[in-house]
Amino acid sequence: MEAVVCGIDPGLGTTGYAVLSADSGQLSIIDAGVFRLDARRSLEERLVDIDRDLSAVLNEHHPSIVAVEALYAHYRHPRTAILMGHARGVILLAAARLGLEVESYSATRIKRFLTGNGQATKEQMQRTIQATMGLPQLPEPSDVADALAIAMCCIADRFRMKPVEVSA
Amino acid sequence: MEAVVCGIDPGLGTTGYAVLSADSGQLSIIDAGVFRLDARRSLEERLVDIDRDLSAVLNEHHPSIVAVEALYAHYRHPRTAILMGHARGVILLAAARLGLEVESYSATRIKRFLTGNGQATKEQMQRTIQATMGLPQLPEPSDVADALAIAMCCIADRFRMKPVEVSA
Repeated sequence: MEAVVCGIDPGLGTTGYAVLSADSGQLSIIDAGVFRLDARRSLEERLVDIDRDLSAVLNEHHPSIVAVEALYAHYRHPRTAILMGHARGVILLAAARLGLEVESYSATRIKRFLTGNGQATKEQMQRTIQATMGLPQLPEPSDVADALAIAMCCIADRFRMKPVEVSA
Repeated sequence: MEAVVCGIDPGLGTTGYAVLSADSGQLSIIDAGVFRLDARRSLEERLVDIDRDLSAVLNEHHPSIVAVEALYAHYRHPRTAILMGHARGVILLAAARLGLEVESYSATRIKRFLTGNGQATKEQMQRTIQATMGLPQLPEPSDVADALAIAMCCIADRFRMKPVEVSA
């Protein structure tokens, strides 16, 4: 059975997304990219943009699960974290309004799932994603890499598919 | 000219709202109440509930402005503030999606507008609201009182109507 998962890395500057399919043990990228938000637009206008762009992706690929990084309470920059909460709220709404299941994973859990190390560096994560997905180069920008990592973690968790391990 | 403003006090437990009309210097409450959210429902389900309930209010009364308390960066409880950000994001989206203007006011500014004192107590605020709006009793619950205060502040700011002052 084919499983389709959409991983999202929320942000008001750039929101990354990655739609992955897992079919008979084969993992493939259906779609991935970023929504670049115009910093000159107001907060509420950018939320409308995220809602519209993400809803288009979800309607096109109808994933069974939307996976987003979990809340993390100890932000160094409370204002940034609260603003990120606005984007995350709109993303959860877009998924739930379409009847899609929502899953959250902590950054540590995502890193441990992919590399076996909850403290993995960004480059270790990118290398694992590149190896597992057979990409010709490291996934860029980081928003897409993070969205891929979240989606891969969700597939590993929910469909018992373990990513291949690469040495760090 | 009649001005209609909807003030909202966002929350994932209870969201308060108040729709006020200002017509030829006369302030009146068109609608006010709370959306009580079911704590047993998931975060994303509650966001769907807020979106649905608030959109119904906005579609019914079509205010020209939706006023919400401004972000405040120095929260003692970051997790609560981030969760509140989710609700606020969905509220801003609901307003902007309908093409309604959004305004934000800091808690201090709302208090100063209503009572002349940016450090006013909750009771001083309630008494001012009661006197200005000619209510038979203090506005309750606090979520409705806060939503009324935000809407009154917005009307005072945008339509140059000064609330009456009461002694504290």
